[in-house]
Amino acid sequence: MKLLKCFVWSQTSETEQTALLQRPTMESNKNISVQVAEILKTVKSGGDSALRDYTQKYDNVKIENFKVSEDEITAGYNKTSESLKDSLRVAIQNLQTFHQAQIQTPLKIETMPGVVCEKRTVAIEKVGLYIPGGTAPLPSTLMMVGVPALVAGCSEIRLVTPPQKDGSIHPVILTAASLLGLKNIYKCGGAQAIAALAYGTESIPKVNKIFGPGNAWVTEAKMQVAYDPTGAAIDLPAGPSEVLVIADAMASAEFVAADLLSQAEHDTASQVILVTTSQQMADAVEDQLQRQLETLSRRDIAKVALSSSRCLLAESVQQAMEISNAYAPEHLILHVENPYTVANTVKNAGSVFIGPWSPESVGDYASGTNHVLPTYGYARAFSGLSLESFTKSISFQELSAAGLKRIGPHVSNLAAAEGLDAHERAVSLRLASLINNNGTPL
Amino acid sequence: MKLLKCFVWSQTSETEQTALLQRPTMESNKNISVQVAEILKTVKSGGDSALRDYTQKYDNVKIENFKVSEDEITAGYNKTSESLKDSLRVAIQNLQTFHQAQIQTPLKIETMPGVVCEKRTVAIEKVGLYIPGGTAPLPSTLMMVGVPALVAGCSEIRLVTPPQKDGSIHPVILTAASLLGLKNIYKCGGAQAIAALAYGTESIPKVNKIFGPGNAWVTEAKMQVAYDPTGAAIDLPAGPSEVLVIADAMASAEFVAADLLSQAEHDTASQVILVTTSQQMADAVEDQLQRQLETLSRRDIAKVALSSSRCLLAESVQQAMEISNAYAPEHLILHVENPYTVANTVKNAGSVFIGPWSPESVGDYASGTNHVLPTYGYARAFSGLSLESFTKSISFQELSAAGLKRIGPHVSNLAAAEGLDAHERAVSLRLASLINNNGTPL
Repeated sequence: MKLLKCFVWSQTSETEQTALLQRPTMESNKNISVQVAEILKTVKSGGDSALRDYTQKYDNVKIENFKVSEDEITAGYNKTSESLKDSLRVAIQNLQTFHQAQIQTPLKIETMPGVVCEKRTVAIEKVGLYIPGGTAPLPSTLMMVGVPALVAGCSEIRLVTPPQKDGSIHPVILTAASLLGLKNIYKCGGAQAIAALAYGTESIPKVNKIFGPGNAWVTEAKMQVAYDPTGAAIDLPAGPSEVLVIADAMASAEFVAADLLSQAEHDTASQVILVTTSQQMADAVEDQLQRQLETLSRRDIAKVALSSSRCLLAESVQQAMEISNAYAPEHLILHVENPYTVANTVKNAGSVFIGPWSPESVGDYASGTNHVLPTYGYARAFSGLSLESFTKSISFQELSAAGLKRIGPHVSNLAAAEGLDAHERAVSLRLASLINNNGTPL
Repeated sequence: MKLLKCFVWSQTSETEQTALLQRPTMESNKNISVQVAEILKTVKSGGDSALRDYTQKYDNVKIENFKVSEDEITAGYNKTSESLKDSLRVAIQNLQTFHQAQIQTPLKIETMPGVVCEKRTVAIEKVGLYIPGGTAPLPSTLMMVGVPALVAGCSEIRLVTPPQKDGSIHPVILTAASLLGLKNIYKCGGAQAIAALAYGTESIPKVNKIFGPGNAWVTEAKMQVAYDPTGAAIDLPAGPSEVLVIADAMASAEFVAADLLSQAEHDTASQVILVTTSQQMADAVEDQLQRQLETLSRRDIAKVALSSSRCLLAESVQQAMEISNAYAPEHLILHVENPYTVANTVKNAGSVFIGPWSPESVGDYASGTNHVLPTYGYARAFSGLSLESFTKSISFQELSAAGLKRIGPHVSNLAAAEGLDAHERAVSLRLASLINNNGTPL
């Protein structure tokens, strides 16, 4: 049986095309939503004690002190191989280089003589980083949220991650934290950890913004605290991870298949789309998928993901890019001739991988770009994480008396048009004072 | 009776201090929330017909064609005085200057030899602008959302605004739209207009992101469509407008009072806080407030707003700034000696007005900075509108074969640590192909 279902794009109706680019519906699970609301409320009022109860209930472990001790961090660090530490260091170094290059110089400009406007970027003071637990540790996620938080200069960085069954945190996570110099690490996960970050408990101080991916409970909890004015801001809405690969006849079917599989193995809900200008390429990729799939330890997950995958036959690379821009993929991989030129036509995507030597996994781990990206079509309006996500901008204006003289009458005019006397007054009494003090206008 | 309630900051307990900086609770109005959900659902399925019904119901007018015709725009333009047009032009010009200066050059950097990472900024394609109706037109809001949308290069800009009782749009709004060159203007407002922008109707195409302030219904509708993956992104969560003024003994009490009033006149829910280092200044401002208030047409609104205002006596300008940073005001006005130096210590604020000649109203209308700003403490994590709000960034990476050789082993290492075979495979089979083709590694 074929793994990839193929469709000829220009032979499908507009309705079919819309359906082909549809993500699976994310049923807002009413049950999860109500339970998450209950968890948030309970932790908000109950603090550490509620957090302890939920950790016992959901992680099956009793945690006395949520905060990981320095000794535990050191022990975790010592358990990790030098080779893996080296790789973590390389990834951190590249992430630092790319995110440091994003530091914005303050903008200062005179919009009219005597009217100086500025825009300055300032770090968000208190940030919370959520690192999921589960079967394998995710040090890459920690680097992706930790590095920009540090480069931005956030003054309080709190890291939460679910404890393992024995109450410890995986050594690789502690090693990554140690390499980054992060010390405020707490053993809690799930919606209750999001509650702790958003509202604060005795052990875990409240933060202003929460970063990092998680399961359906964590995602729902993040949406709910973002909706609550007393909660916290969040990085991005989240959906299942996804990739769209554009391949022409010149592509390596082997590489294309490997890239599709490296997305499919993430999750049964992962989305995998191949858009190709060549039927032969579609067939060759199918063949490669069959071969490569069987050798993967996570093949059962990948198989389910592939079962809702699609192969779309496009008439040209240009049409392929139109399809991609309409879909707005989290990851876009360009296996085409002149990939850099094609990359210039990307309108909607999270992160783009240009050419045969740029597999998605380099961006997932170590190239320097961020792997926390907009899924589910959110790339139409959202950016992936970057240095900006950990900062906010503040505008400033300073007028000289001469500047106010110049702009004041227009402000008065506009304020009058909006019926706002006091706005007008704040200008006119200043202008009057200038005339009164000096006898003449400036 | 005194208008300003005064408190000596260092004589209040920590609990009192927290209470003094508390915003009034925004009761999530259960009733509004349910009704808004119903409106969104009905417009989503019913399109124009539902939009027409709601417009009849809430705006008391039957609208046949939602789209404003070119003739209507021209007629509105011709009704507006030349003097007001001049002032609109000046404001637009300054906004353009400041927002154009925010255009980011693409970032391209080699994080390690052969690993090139890029970050490019791209306009959000389809944006919706909400301009509130009400007693007076708000051309300033239209300029604040319209100018950056145009500078960003958004390809579809849809403007919605509630019709007046006679089914027309206020001439000043049409004039501002005309000066900006915006042609897609629709006569609808309230939650139903947000629904139209988020989901699309026959007349109003769906957009990716919605901008602009509104009443409680509009705000609730924006939050709900932002929460819905099939909805649209929004600019900012919203709360009542607010100002914090820091004044030392050298300030002009007249100016300080005028600035406090220009905030208080906005809305009965507006927040007004004076932080001063001088008891005499507090008294003088009280005196000025009493005098100036009586002359305002919106004095009844301002009086209610002032009734929940506060004056906080600080020991130093530094302590005053600590208070301000804890409060995170939407607007911060600095009536102090060396205001520019003091401005350098701002950590949390939307927009800052430096010195005696910089009233808030210049930023509200014409200095060039944006007046759509984070309220309600959101300035701790959110920025006001800027060019960035109308764009998203996309990351790119292009590796050479040599670059992949260099970074590949680290990617494999990290993927193995996370148990993701296919991620590792996407790298290793490329590295193998390099060796196989050439006989030797690069």
